[in-house]
Amino acid sequence: MPKKIHNIKGVRLSSASSNTRYGKRDDSLAIAIPSESKLSGKFTTNKLKAAPVIIAAQNLQKLSSGNKILLVNAGNANAANGPSGLRDVKKYCREIASYLRVKEENIIPFSTGVIGEKLPVDEYLVAFKKALDNLNDKSWKKAATAILTTDTKPKIVSKLVNVGKNSYKVTGFAKGSGMIKPDFATLLSFVFIDGKLSQSLLDKIHSKALKNSFEAITVDGDTSPNDSSMLVANGNKEKPIKAGSREEKKLSQAITETFAELAELLIDDAEGATKKIKVKVTKAKSVKQARSIAFTVAESPLVKTAMFGSDANWGRILSAVGRDESLQDIDKVIIKLNGHPLVKKGHKDSRYSEKSASREMKKKEISIEISLGVGVKEFQAVTSDLSEDYVLINSDYRS
Amino acid sequence: MPKKIHNIKGVRLSSASSNTRYGKRDDSLAIAIPSESKLSGKFTTNKLKAAPVIIAAQNLQKLSSGNKILLVNAGNANAANGPSGLRDVKKYCREIASYLRVKEENIIPFSTGVIGEKLPVDEYLVAFKKALDNLNDKSWKKAATAILTTDTKPKIVSKLVNVGKNSYKVTGFAKGSGMIKPDFATLLSFVFIDGKLSQSLLDKIHSKALKNSFEAITVDGDTSPNDSSMLVANGNKEKPIKAGSREEKKLSQAITETFAELAELLIDDAEGATKKIKVKVTKAKSVKQARSIAFTVAESPLVKTAMFGSDANWGRILSAVGRDESLQDIDKVIIKLNGHPLVKKGHKDSRYSEKSASREMKKKEISIEISLGVGVKEFQAVTSDLSEDYVLINSDYRS
Repeated sequence: MPKKIHNIKGVRLSSASSNTRYGKRDDSLAIAIPSESKLSGKFTTNKLKAAPVIIAAQNLQKLSSGNKILLVNAGNANAANGPSGLRDVKKYCREIASYLRVKEENIIPFSTGVIGEKLPVDEYLVAFKKALDNLNDKSWKKAATAILTTDTKPKIVSKLVNVGKNSYKVTGFAKGSGMIKPDFATLLSFVFIDGKLSQSLLDKIHSKALKNSFEAITVDGDTSPNDSSMLVANGNKEKPIKAGSREEKKLSQAITETFAELAELLIDDAEGATKKIKVKVTKAKSVKQARSIAFTVAESPLVKTAMFGSDANWGRILSAVGRDESLQDIDKVIIKLNGHPLVKKGHKDSRYSEKSASREMKKKEISIEISLGVGVKEFQAVTSDLSEDYVLINSDYRS
Repeated sequence: MPKKIHNIKGVRLSSASSNTRYGKRDDSLAIAIPSESKLSGKFTTNKLKAAPVIIAAQNLQKLSSGNKILLVNAGNANAANGPSGLRDVKKYCREIASYLRVKEENIIPFSTGVIGEKLPVDEYLVAFKKALDNLNDKSWKKAATAILTTDTKPKIVSKLVNVGKNSYKVTGFAKGSGMIKPDFATLLSFVFIDGKLSQSLLDKIHSKALKNSFEAITVDGDTSPNDSSMLVANGNKEKPIKAGSREEKKLSQAITETFAELAELLIDDAEGATKKIKVKVTKAKSVKQARSIAFTVAESPLVKTAMFGSDANWGRILSAVGRDESLQDIDKVIIKLNGHPLVKKGHKDSRYSEKSASREMKKKEISIEISLGVGVKEFQAVTSDLSEDYVLINSDYRS
């Protein structure tokens, strides 16, 4: 949790309970965003798209003037519910629009939870209205907690960026701990900034921030129908940001860092995870190749179980590298673990020490560096280990 | 275990113990094949190729007249050992060649076991010689047992094919229970037939048999450096087989069935498996598309853990289908589980019954049928569930 959470001018939020899947726990979040704000939304690439994802993407294309409202419910994904799923989303969007007297297209819905069960619309509507009656600019932690499903803790990142006399705030929160895979991770993420910039610049910054954050993590290789990432600029006129300016560069970097930190918080809290594993592929001929090999290793069940067992099983890492179709020459591969030599020229490095490798393997954070020796490009994927608890959680709970 | 194991004329085999990794258990197998036989070998597509795989593939290209000898050791994969791994293989091949007075290129080596540890050559040599001194035509079960690693039982299939007055025998055995993935499964497989046919016809029959057997199964999506499949015809002149003949068709079918049965035996004994799951994709626009989607579902950790937990979680199946890049229209997807309706038009089938789906999920064999509704091609992948035991086995044992 950050020491200080910076409120974002004009952004107000509140949560309430629908009294459904999670009992009295808050599971319904409303966020009001001022009229002058800009919203950038990126959604799942899964062809199974949840009803709220379809409506959110549509509404973002035709926003009107006036306040915008983000509505998020946890406990029910409203995915794979066919036409009735769409009707349900439209129903609560319409009703909230009329309750607040804003345009229906200004209501942006998000859902997370179990797939294929009818959404209890009326219950969530009661909760949304209750939340909307209590909007305030401080409830970040409550908001981050209300959207959780199998996560064990809220994930919030907040930063203050100083550029000359100006300062910009970035505050965001995210959820997700299983069904996590790039393009992008199964997650909901909401990041807000205090500043005014154009829609195209906001979209560009958003895409860039996703690349090395939510698009670089994997828990289990599974994507979901509900993945959504929002980047919202509050439109504060006193803080204009122009493309290519110093402000833009520093703010863009802070946003990228915020996304990356949120992504790592997701991995820290991944289902059943006992370790965080960074797989960095270097000296690749292209980023595409580096990315492909990084994910092949990061998603290998044999590598992930070895990590869980603290077994410095470099043979499994090398074997996973070897099965990637894009690999050219296994004899050029060098692998290090937290800086310790494992593999050189495609076989065990003569400096390999079982003792020091085993010591490193017991750490909570493992870095696997794989040099392909064929180019200059690189990519890092971040994943978790595969534990008995992952199996327990996912064989037990219909999520 | 088959009721009757048919010996293959001229094929003699025996096993012994090297007294290394597995103590006194037999772990070294020798198979002598008569001079007039034909051998077809197919090896791993992993770019990390074990030393014996490299030598076996080379030797098969330059076989001389005289007996051929297959040597198989379990306990050490002799993979990723660099130049010294190759020297070790050559050493024991040369020594056995001189011991038997056969040409060195007629010795075909295979290994399975831990990656990246030096092969105890002298110990295996003693065992190979001992085995070679005791060759006989009956030791199929002992042979199938000697090559096991994490497998819990030997896998043997034996068939008698009658065509008119002639009869042909097919007998084979295989090992493999983790690091299993097509192109092809991490395994060693040896199938022998009693008949005479050309090298090109044998290779063709071999490739065809692999397609719907070892290339259609997956345990964990990981391939190994040691995967090898041998199809050997003993060259019995009394049983000639011509391409396109009735004999060829029936024998080819029996061989394909033998491979498929061996592949299913591997899945039955997959690491930690409690269930066998067949994922059949139908009405695809191409076999490639059907195959891609079948494997995406068969390798999804969320689908596999749901299977372990007997949870009829059709949302996860549909979601895995949805993330496959080759899918066109999620709204045409129909999914059935052991014939029971789950999904229609991309959402829950109105005839879905939680009760009957749950009943089916408790069975040991689950069939998931996914119709894409866009063509006429199909493909079936066979996999196991993902259990806590899989994690335990693989976090515990450096294999």
